[in-house]
Amino acid sequence: MAHSGRRLTRRTLIGGAAAGAAGAAVPGRATAARKRRQIKVDVAVVGAGLAGLTTARRLVQKGAGSVVVLEARNRVGGRTFTKRKHGTWVDVGGQWVKTKPSGYGPAQDRMTALAKEVGVKTFPTYYEGDDVGYQHGVRTTYPPGPTQELPPGPGLADIAPAIVKLDQMAAEVGSVAPWNAPNAADYDGQTFETWGRANTATEDGRKLIELGAEAILACQPRDISLLYVLFYIASAGTLENLFSTPSGYQESRFVGGSQQVSRKVARALGKRVILNSPVGRIVQKKGHVTVESARAVVTAKQAVVAIAPALTAQIRFDPPLPPLRAQLAQRFPMGSVIKVHAVYDRPFWRDDGLTGFTVSDTGPVRISFDNTPPKGSPGMLVSFLEGDEARRYSNRPPAERRRAVLDSFARYFGPKARNAIDYIEMDWMKEPWSRGCYVGIMPPGVMLSYGRTLRPSIGRVHWAGTETATQGAGYMEGAVRSGERAAAEVMARL
Amino acid sequence: MAHSGRRLTRRTLIGGAAAGAAGAAVPGRATAARKRRQIKVDVAVVGAGLAGLTTARRLVQKGAGSVVVLEARNRVGGRTFTKRKHGTWVDVGGQWVKTKPSGYGPAQDRMTALAKEVGVKTFPTYYEGDDVGYQHGVRTTYPPGPTQELPPGPGLADIAPAIVKLDQMAAEVGSVAPWNAPNAADYDGQTFETWGRANTATEDGRKLIELGAEAILACQPRDISLLYVLFYIASAGTLENLFSTPSGYQESRFVGGSQQVSRKVARALGKRVILNSPVGRIVQKKGHVTVESARAVVTAKQAVVAIAPALTAQIRFDPPLPPLRAQLAQRFPMGSVIKVHAVYDRPFWRDDGLTGFTVSDTGPVRISFDNTPPKGSPGMLVSFLEGDEARRYSNRPPAERRRAVLDSFARYFGPKARNAIDYIEMDWMKEPWSRGCYVGIMPPGVMLSYGRTLRPSIGRVHWAGTETATQGAGYMEGAVRSGERAAAEVMARL
Repeated sequence: MAHSGRRLTRRTLIGGAAAGAAGAAVPGRATAARKRRQIKVDVAVVGAGLAGLTTARRLVQKGAGSVVVLEARNRVGGRTFTKRKHGTWVDVGGQWVKTKPSGYGPAQDRMTALAKEVGVKTFPTYYEGDDVGYQHGVRTTYPPGPTQELPPGPGLADIAPAIVKLDQMAAEVGSVAPWNAPNAADYDGQTFETWGRANTATEDGRKLIELGAEAILACQPRDISLLYVLFYIASAGTLENLFSTPSGYQESRFVGGSQQVSRKVARALGKRVILNSPVGRIVQKKGHVTVESARAVVTAKQAVVAIAPALTAQIRFDPPLPPLRAQLAQRFPMGSVIKVHAVYDRPFWRDDGLTGFTVSDTGPVRISFDNTPPKGSPGMLVSFLEGDEARRYSNRPPAERRRAVLDSFARYFGPKARNAIDYIEMDWMKEPWSRGCYVGIMPPGVMLSYGRTLRPSIGRVHWAGTETATQGAGYMEGAVRSGERAAAEVMARL
Repeated sequence: MAHSGRRLTRRTLIGGAAAGAAGAAVPGRATAARKRRQIKVDVAVVGAGLAGLTTARRLVQKGAGSVVVLEARNRVGGRTFTKRKHGTWVDVGGQWVKTKPSGYGPAQDRMTALAKEVGVKTFPTYYEGDDVGYQHGVRTTYPPGPTQELPPGPGLADIAPAIVKLDQMAAEVGSVAPWNAPNAADYDGQTFETWGRANTATEDGRKLIELGAEAILACQPRDISLLYVLFYIASAGTLENLFSTPSGYQESRFVGGSQQVSRKVARALGKRVILNSPVGRIVQKKGHVTVESARAVVTAKQAVVAIAPALTAQIRFDPPLPPLRAQLAQRFPMGSVIKVHAVYDRPFWRDDGLTGFTVSDTGPVRISFDNTPPKGSPGMLVSFLEGDEARRYSNRPPAERRRAVLDSFARYFGPKARNAIDYIEMDWMKEPWSRGCYVGIMPPGVMLSYGRTLRPSIGRVHWAGTETATQGAGYMEGAVRSGERAAAEVMARL
């Protein structure tokens, strides 16, 4: 080792404090280089989303050494982002959590535990009454049954055996090394669309397959491989766990919003977190790694890159990443989603005995939820433009999107839905430090030929982020788990 | 306009000269920012591959204004790269050109014209005698027939109708706006593997489909969509034009190597070309665009980004690129290839009446060519580890690759092939400024949802590069054509 952990810890505190004061530095500006602080720590973490913050928190808790977290944005939380509006909060990013196991699969227990640690409470997602279905221009209401809250009809009958098959195949494939599964090459050689066409008999069934890809992965079935879909299901336990509200991943929400968790973790980390400091370069030399960002040049024993693989393409690695890891970053794009909220004086659909949950074959928004805060007002509906709808609407004027979204809601909940007092939207494709949501998605061939490069560290560079998780991948749960795994990995090397 | 072209021209010359002298600046180093030259020009070009150099040359030829070309590497030529070895040259990058039209489709006439302009000559690829086939462990020799130089047998019989079908579908789809083709969604919803399985009856036929994807696009059939394959065929005219030697894209080679063309174009551009200067950021402001690179900050009226779309992910755009263009950069990965040469005292296979061309079902190298210089010595065989073979072998010790490649050649040409006096290899995945070759490949869904963002400029930022071409896409021809198109586009805006 080139330097002792003790000495580094002391320097960090100095470096961290100074960096915190250098508020005048403009990130990425040519002149910024002159003002960058030099910091020495044991561990440099790239990204203050849940993965990076969890990594840092666990390292600090175990007394593993000094840590700095470099964040490109002016905020922490990554793909979770909570805004204050109308006397309450609005989660414009990831929001749901599953706190208890169910017949559909495990809870998201590490995220639940982290929230508990920092004192963020959860409450059950509102789900009383009937769901709304909308198919072939006809609105129906139906009580959510044991069969995954899909509207009864030929589509559901068509798709039910497909769901059973997917769960069975996912169990075979697993989430740890899907590339080694017996049928991996066959599954990764086809799109989810190809599989869906071969395993549904009706147009309604095919549309539900499409809706599944959109709602769960923010893309079209053609954009992803069957093997990747099976991995994703395996990482959740079952497909039903992914899409169920009361017994699945949409079971609960965070009081005060999901970003609270990251904010509180960051607060405890204090000056170890440096905002507005995108990382441009990571240099590995004998005995250390240097992480160069807009506001700080951090020299560390180990580095953890806790951002989506697609985003690592914008970091220059010296020496360059090994070929396969470098090519993975080109092959694991982010999904396409615009999250939308309509705000009302009160949740009027509840008066009609409706859950707020919809399943529709007509866009631009198809699946929606009641997102009213626990006190019962204002009323809020949340939905998503996903995949092709997001791509189609992203460049339109906001007024056009608002109108199209409220028209959709009016189809599901009646004309009152047009009287929104506010419309709140977040286009995650426009965020330069996310470039899409919810998660990195894999087209055919990627899991098979590149999947094995997802997690192994490269010298002193380790990988975290929900895309590297084997349980709860794509969710806050996966981010937290990946951070805990990365922290353990790094500790073994310090 | 904020500044006149005249004034800019004068400043450029000063700026260019000064930049040329700033040889001490180390690209990408934190300290480099202080030494960066400020340059004002009419047009800033990013990338001194054939696309960027052609853009600059055409602009200068038309007297369109002042130009600077910023290149990340310490050399020009991009994916063409010629080394001097054994008293001759070795093209370790792109090398072939089609100088004359044939029954299979058009010539690569713009590349041919550019080479002629700068005085680089061509000569026909050696192709006298019999080809070698190797299937099911059996070596055969056969005279190349009118049917695409594939070995006779059940595989060829199986695949012949598939080739006819592909050519027909490609003609329907075209290369200009494949996303608008009547069957675009169907074609882009499936992998080329899925289509191949449905359109071949034998394992031999399926293997030839695989060989086609590997040889032409350096990937597996599962990595690409049918729609992308059809686009690529359409951009060449026919599939036969892509893979034929005497009547297709492998018809001729450049005397002295293909990089000669770029070198000579660059020499004529003089100090306008700045090497070792990777671009990190492009800022568009009212009236101008600023391109920030390691050695120069260039303020221009228009910018042309002449690098592969996948590589644009490493440039920070301010304002950020529109969502779809930004997401395209995540969805258009580079192929996987290691180009290999074996050098012999003389081309001994010619004594046996062999062309040097092989088609094999056994790796790691399957298709090879005689790459001897026109004077007839030393003898050279050239081949490629492509797709999965490249991914598999990339991290192996060089001696293991050499042995495996020479073993392949020995299967095709006899034990003499093991007595190579040299083995020369180039792993394009390891090149940080290419990150793969031959070309960006599109998985399913990308052409359909993102194809229309390939060429349109965004404010003052224009796009060139062979991936943006509609004729000869993926080849030097496409690069030159894209540069000529970009130059015309920019001129209309100056």
